[in-house]
Amino acid sequence: MDLVLISIVLGLLAVVYGVFTSSQVLGASAGNEKMQEIAGAIQEGAKAYLGRQYRTIAMVGVVVAVLVGVFLGLTSAIGFVIGAVLSGVAGYIGMNISVRANVRTAAAAEKGLQDGLTMAFRAGAITGLLVAGLALLAIAVFYYYLTRVQGMAVNDRTVIDALVALAFGASLISIFARLGGGIFTKAADVGADLVGKVEAGIPEDDPRNPAVIADNVGDNVGDCAGMAADLFETYVVTVGATMVLIALLVKGAGEALAPLMALPLFIGGVCIVASIIGTYFVKLGSSNNVMGAMYKGFGITAVISAFLIWFATDYALGGMETEIGDNGYTGRALFYCSFLGLAITGLIIWITEYYTGTNYRPVRSIAKASETGHGTNVIQGLAISLEATALPTLVIVAGIIIAYQLAGLIGIGFAATAMLALAGMVVALDAYGPVTDNAGGIAEMAGLDESVREKTDLLDAVGNTTKAVTKGYAIGSAGLAALVLFAAYTTDLREFFPNVTVDFSLENPYVIVGLLLGALLPYLFGAMGMTAVGRAAGDVVKDVRDQFANDPGIMAGTSRPNYARTVDLVTKAAIKEMIIPSLLPVLAPIVVYFVISWIAGEANGFAALGALLLGVIVGGLFVALSMTAGGGAWDNAKKYIEDGNHGGKGSDAHHAAVTGDTVGDPYKDTAGPAVNPMIKITNIVALLLLATLAGGHAAM
Amino acid sequence: MDLVLISIVLGLLAVVYGVFTSSQVLGASAGNEKMQEIAGAIQEGAKAYLGRQYRTIAMVGVVVAVLVGVFLGLTSAIGFVIGAVLSGVAGYIGMNISVRANVRTAAAAEKGLQDGLTMAFRAGAITGLLVAGLALLAIAVFYYYLTRVQGMAVNDRTVIDALVALAFGASLISIFARLGGGIFTKAADVGADLVGKVEAGIPEDDPRNPAVIADNVGDNVGDCAGMAADLFETYVVTVGATMVLIALLVKGAGEALAPLMALPLFIGGVCIVASIIGTYFVKLGSSNNVMGAMYKGFGITAVISAFLIWFATDYALGGMETEIGDNGYTGRALFYCSFLGLAITGLIIWITEYYTGTNYRPVRSIAKASETGHGTNVIQGLAISLEATALPTLVIVAGIIIAYQLAGLIGIGFAATAMLALAGMVVALDAYGPVTDNAGGIAEMAGLDESVREKTDLLDAVGNTTKAVTKGYAIGSAGLAALVLFAAYTTDLREFFPNVTVDFSLENPYVIVGLLLGALLPYLFGAMGMTAVGRAAGDVVKDVRDQFANDPGIMAGTSRPNYARTVDLVTKAAIKEMIIPSLLPVLAPIVVYFVISWIAGEANGFAALGALLLGVIVGGLFVALSMTAGGGAWDNAKKYIEDGNHGGKGSDAHHAAVTGDTVGDPYKDTAGPAVNPMIKITNIVALLLLATLAGGHAAM
Repeated sequence: MDLVLISIVLGLLAVVYGVFTSSQVLGASAGNEKMQEIAGAIQEGAKAYLGRQYRTIAMVGVVVAVLVGVFLGLTSAIGFVIGAVLSGVAGYIGMNISVRANVRTAAAAEKGLQDGLTMAFRAGAITGLLVAGLALLAIAVFYYYLTRVQGMAVNDRTVIDALVALAFGASLISIFARLGGGIFTKAADVGADLVGKVEAGIPEDDPRNPAVIADNVGDNVGDCAGMAADLFETYVVTVGATMVLIALLVKGAGEALAPLMALPLFIGGVCIVASIIGTYFVKLGSSNNVMGAMYKGFGITAVISAFLIWFATDYALGGMETEIGDNGYTGRALFYCSFLGLAITGLIIWITEYYTGTNYRPVRSIAKASETGHGTNVIQGLAISLEATALPTLVIVAGIIIAYQLAGLIGIGFAATAMLALAGMVVALDAYGPVTDNAGGIAEMAGLDESVREKTDLLDAVGNTTKAVTKGYAIGSAGLAALVLFAAYTTDLREFFPNVTVDFSLENPYVIVGLLLGALLPYLFGAMGMTAVGRAAGDVVKDVRDQFANDPGIMAGTSRPNYARTVDLVTKAAIKEMIIPSLLPVLAPIVVYFVISWIAGEANGFAALGALLLGVIVGGLFVALSMTAGGGAWDNAKKYIEDGNHGGKGSDAHHAAVTGDTVGDPYKDTAGPAVNPMIKITNIVALLLLATLAGGHAAM
Repeated sequence: MDLVLISIVLGLLAVVYGVFTSSQVLGASAGNEKMQEIAGAIQEGAKAYLGRQYRTIAMVGVVVAVLVGVFLGLTSAIGFVIGAVLSGVAGYIGMNISVRANVRTAAAAEKGLQDGLTMAFRAGAITGLLVAGLALLAIAVFYYYLTRVQGMAVNDRTVIDALVALAFGASLISIFARLGGGIFTKAADVGADLVGKVEAGIPEDDPRNPAVIADNVGDNVGDCAGMAADLFETYVVTVGATMVLIALLVKGAGEALAPLMALPLFIGGVCIVASIIGTYFVKLGSSNNVMGAMYKGFGITAVISAFLIWFATDYALGGMETEIGDNGYTGRALFYCSFLGLAITGLIIWITEYYTGTNYRPVRSIAKASETGHGTNVIQGLAISLEATALPTLVIVAGIIIAYQLAGLIGIGFAATAMLALAGMVVALDAYGPVTDNAGGIAEMAGLDESVREKTDLLDAVGNTTKAVTKGYAIGSAGLAALVLFAAYTTDLREFFPNVTVDFSLENPYVIVGLLLGALLPYLFGAMGMTAVGRAAGDVVKDVRDQFANDPGIMAGTSRPNYARTVDLVTKAAIKEMIIPSLLPVLAPIVVYFVISWIAGEANGFAALGALLLGVIVGGLFVALSMTAGGGAWDNAKKYIEDGNHGGKGSDAHHAAVTGDTVGDPYKDTAGPAVNPMIKITNIVALLLLATLAGGHAAM
């Protein structure tokens, strides 16, 4: 049977799982009237924000779609639209489930910890499997249509360009969603904390704080919708780029090329099965260890995936010893590379837990440093954030070396594909976080029993680590995917411009110029993201102060604050602030190419552009890893103190830890994670620029 | 006349200036008995620290000298020792002047602002000109001895290796001095602030604080001695590497090679004259603008330097239109490159002032963000530190492109050389800072009139910016020097291993592995430096708490704290903490080469090592720029608030700004500046590794 068709069926299975589990979640009790009222406000705010965000993105998207159509032809434009729309859909569905599961998790936690965990994790699993399923379907259906219905050759230029355009659509939406959502969630969070906890002296999630609904909306539109769009993009780009690389690089495979190109899709498909099975193993043991339950689910998914990938590879290639064209390696080597991808995922999860979990040295050292004040808390947090880049980098470097030794660049592609094939499970772990975070907020605002809040806090503490895990995983896979994209760039370059000799050697100063400019991009992008959060949070503070001043009944608890006004304000601010930084990685490759070409000729323009692509990954990997790990560590250092260490809640150490947490917020939830789509969008724009410069090779 | 001899004479001129001006400084009034007693304690502590630091470094140094002797021959070992000893001497003299000028500046400030400025700036100028003079003499005398006395050819392998070994000696000492001094100064500063300002509620520099002498010692051993050793190293490496590159790359110059190789020395020599003249123009105008006086001195130095470099180039090459060998450019092109170096220096100073001065958006935005608390202060400071990398990177990139277009890699070398030729003046501006900082401390401790402290504060505010300027300048020049060193690496490689084809293309995965590992080094190094400061500061806090607890008379002002005990404690901690991070850049290139060679063959080992060198600069440039600019901005944001803005001293905004300042301390004075010698040491170790692997080509 056609592997692509099987992959489509497996992608549909994920959708079926999502629909089936959604009905389970929606069928559960949504709690009392008060809870439903609060949840309703959050739903309304999240929908309003996403609606406005998508309308803004759509305007940019239509312009870009037309440009893609004009320069690269209709098929590519269709690919772009599919990628863009489905990336948006993935985010929208994630948000939609999350804003319904939050209140149900709070209600379930009234019954017990396991009930709360089940509800929140199911919501996460729906998002996770829909992200993986939709991403797989996007590529597989489009690819099936082009090669089987339209009858194009699997390595036809139109097919390749269309896959790249599809990835571009997904990336463009995801950078807006990640950044816009990231600015929204952290502006609301920081603003609410500053004016509530610090100024007014009221606790977190106090219903008297006008920014409290905005804060909860932020969890859904940033940590859930933004993250889902990001992982959708990562999946599509990684799998798509691996297929493109196979089409460009594998020579002499003949008839075997079609199943080889379909293998990444098939691996994605079988891992959906493994992920679905894994979700049923997320159960508390006798020790009530929430993180342990998560690990059990992930571990089972990974083990089953390894077996299924073995069978998939064997089946697709007609035996593990089949030679791959005349490339000097066999199916077995490709399996080892995929296995390596699974191992890298496991290692990154382990390292992330070490750096962000409350049981280990890093978080505890930050907690301890909080005893001597705000300054030492931040210094130690920054030190940990710098240090946290080392082990993931070594893992990625080892992954590159081993995969390359096994099966060259294609091997790196398969390792990255296998990493992403686990996205269903990894996203499930992440999307679980904002649900429990919201559940805690709703429990607080609705005045539920203290014991409920304790249970949601227990569930939420794990959320900090799982959220950091996904970011480390996404950026790690981006490290591998970027190499694949760079290989696609150089291969395309040779194909499109056979007469231009491009010197990619480090001895070429324009290569160094490109590396420096590329490494600059994540810094500039991070600066813009951090500044945006600060500015928007300042607006929130002013709005809340204004509400308190005009209506003293709010603090007295006699009148209801105008939640919608704050939500509306953050919405406008986030959308305004996301535009310019998002365009930076789109425009930078184009500007660098033209400026350097003008100064030093076309060949050096191509060299500088290629180096820019690697500079972005070399710079961005460290910025993203340090920001996401550091932010998670600060957050959990605060939680560790709140658990009664170093003086506990209200102590001086706690005040210092709150500062660290505030600093970590835009680090880990705005600037850091948005670097991931930024890296890929830079690479994809370069590929599209090549195709455009080549003069519509790909026009239909 | 022999250009090298003229350069030696000009180097001696700097020494004469130093001796003459020293006698002026030492002849001035050292204030009353109380002031002299305090200054004596600082002197004693600084000498004790430097003595112990140098003894520790000497142990490492002797081992390395023997290794250099065994692998590269006696001449190289002598070069190493000269570089190491003079780097130490530069630091020692700087400290020695600084600890005498501090009390005299306080005494002079009693008379007037201009008197204080003159005294402090003269002290800075002594350090500056001795750094430049000794560095020039080190290379020029050694080069003269080898080529004129020993009669070796100017591009003889022994000469090249000896120059590289000399640079290695300077770098090795300077990384220890920068890091050890940086840890000392910030551990004492942060510790004194935490336990004094925050816990005990006593002002900065209060004599009751047992850590107050240690804090003042730190200014001298870190900001002065460490900085002087660093700039000595930067000078030696840059000028030496440019000479090495000329020897390796310029073909067909025949007789003209010798004057061409001497030209970098000659440029260094004439700029010493310009710097000496410039120092006499640092005078307050009618507006009493201290920064303006500094700029006047620098501006005049730069303009005179431009003229003198023109004449030097014309004289050395026998006319500006002389063709440089068969390389396709003339003396005029080399002059333009030197002029470019002067322009880059000016631009970096201007950019640094923009990002760290109190008159511009960045510092003011941090001050404003302090109003909403500690968290927003730190967020905005981090955003500014990320943003502050952009303009210097663009300047460096433009510099690379223009210099390369004008005269290839040699052009980049001349641009870097001209930058460093201004070191006399730039170091003067920097070394002025710790003197005024100390003067303020002494005025406070000796209970001088309030008006004196006001004047020293006015002088000190400028010090924050000038300190940041030198760091931006050093790291910017390192960006150019690293390219020169990388070119030396690749050229050496081809010469030593003509049969090994090394693929430096970005398409080689081992190049990417090298880039990633290289970019990791500054992160890991920064993490170690920050952690060390935190740990040592914690020790200071404990010691001071202990002193307060055991003798209540200290806080009452009736008994004298045991200053020496705290100094001793910080000394031990700093020396212990500096060892491992300093060895990181020494060992990393060796480990990477052998591991990758073992996995993927010698050629890929060389490729990965080369990429590591560029990875260090690509990663390190951004880490260093962001840390030094961000730290300076935080410091001045605090000063801006203390000047009465946003609520002034004691306001909530001020507390937040103190936190930011504390965070910025290890950023700007420990981790950030130490990245500069780290970059170069990695490169130099790689060059020596090549020579060693080539099997003692250079043995005498």
